[in-house]
Amino acid sequence: MAREINKDTVLCMSLASRPSNHGTRFHNFLYEEMDLDFVYKAFTTTDLAAAIGGIRALGIRGCGVSMPYKEACIPYLDALDDSATAIQSVNTIVNTDGRLAAYNTDYIAIAKLLAEYSVDPAGDFAVLGSGGMAKAVVAALRDAGFASGTVVARNQTTGTALADQYGYAWRPELGSSRPRLIVNATPVGMAGGPAADDVPVSPDVVDAAETVFDVVAMPAVTPLVRLGRDRDKKVITGAEVAALQALEQFVLYTGVRPTDEQVRRAAEYARS
Amino acid sequence: MAREINKDTVLCMSLASRPSNHGTRFHNFLYEEMDLDFVYKAFTTTDLAAAIGGIRALGIRGCGVSMPYKEACIPYLDALDDSATAIQSVNTIVNTDGRLAAYNTDYIAIAKLLAEYSVDPAGDFAVLGSGGMAKAVVAALRDAGFASGTVVARNQTTGTALADQYGYAWRPELGSSRPRLIVNATPVGMAGGPAADDVPVSPDVVDAAETVFDVVAMPAVTPLVRLGRDRDKKVITGAEVAALQALEQFVLYTGVRPTDEQVRRAAEYARS
Repeated sequence: MAREINKDTVLCMSLASRPSNHGTRFHNFLYEEMDLDFVYKAFTTTDLAAAIGGIRALGIRGCGVSMPYKEACIPYLDALDDSATAIQSVNTIVNTDGRLAAYNTDYIAIAKLLAEYSVDPAGDFAVLGSGGMAKAVVAALRDAGFASGTVVARNQTTGTALADQYGYAWRPELGSSRPRLIVNATPVGMAGGPAADDVPVSPDVVDAAETVFDVVAMPAVTPLVRLGRDRDKKVITGAEVAALQALEQFVLYTGVRPTDEQVRRAAEYARS
Repeated sequence: MAREINKDTVLCMSLASRPSNHGTRFHNFLYEEMDLDFVYKAFTTTDLAAAIGGIRALGIRGCGVSMPYKEACIPYLDALDDSATAIQSVNTIVNTDGRLAAYNTDYIAIAKLLAEYSVDPAGDFAVLGSGGMAKAVVAALRDAGFASGTVVARNQTTGTALADQYGYAWRPELGSSRPRLIVNATPVGMAGGPAADDVPVSPDVVDAAETVFDVVAMPAVTPLVRLGRDRDKKVITGAEVAALQALEQFVLYTGVRPTDEQVRRAAEYARS
């Protein structure tokens, strides 16, 4: 399942310290499905500046950016979209005639999902975690109009920094608070991790919430997602974030938008 | 006809001011045929230093180099093989863990063909032309032990420079000389060119020769090749040079050697 490559085939790529096959499979599936003369491949590098210089010099159309390059790449780029400015973090570079524009499609995807699921900004939230995805979530919540919320993170340094940056509270633990929206941006529930079978909050926290949002994408149904569904909560999954952010990247690179059904099949293929 | 690409797929590429599909088709055909996890694609650039920096930083395994980069790339490389040193011209870069080694597989192919066809270095030669391929030919003839020969080129500057560099004579025209080996390294006979139907020497020059060597690769049977065959001469073609140099590149990149039959089919596919 791959197109025949010729001199005009457009290359898109990703940069990560430990590349996965996910993006490569997702994008190449859709190129084939939609008969686009593109090809996608994951790379790693030990020289970020030269790698980005190579993207520009070789006319590589787009580049997905993973850890640990999301902030480090910014000095080498030509323009930041609002989505990247919002969190000073880049996960997507688009090369138009040698001009490199930076986006953050995680932020875009989270903001779209919050709107799509009509998550009410009048309620309060707790975001668990203070890493890169927590930042994207908190920024999207701020921009969605949430007046009141808490960053829950054991790391006081990163926790207070994130909370202060967007004007929310910080707490080391959830304690007795029962927010309307719970967002898990920790690795709890992640396949292969040390807490793969765990739910990051007690069941009564889920019971008290209206919406449960887990940014963990693998597995598609985490223990938290399962619990939220069992309790008939509004549930947003990390698999949705992953698929939507990849779709937004795809549209930025190619200028065309696949159908929901095509995206669903590409995401399924990428996970398989 | 292309493999499924994944994160471990090795990228090889080419750099040319006007990329063709030839190398892309040749290499990808063999990757598929031999079940190698490689993919090949042609690129151009407006920033050679950054492009080569990108090759190193992204771990791109190999790069074919065409005009006008064959000499210009040398300052950015880490080591020159004898084949590149012989003519101070690079058509192949091999990246091993960030160390870029340069080769000239045109030179290698020409040297191998001279040996394979047992062209006798005791005879004299005339090489028509004084461009990049003429240089590869003259260097290979020198290294094959030819004591006596002439560079025939209307351009006195490049003609005498090439002749002097390797210790041969220069003449603006062939005149009355009738060398045992005639090599055409001019564009005469090249498909699509202004002299596509022409033979670069008079028929009696071919009659007097033992071996006729045309470095023009397109078409595979040039008017000179046809005439040489009609007159029962030993004939070496530019198509053979092109296929053999691409094969040598392929072996340098992948470490494996396809069969003659696989190379023949790949070359045929690349030309189609």
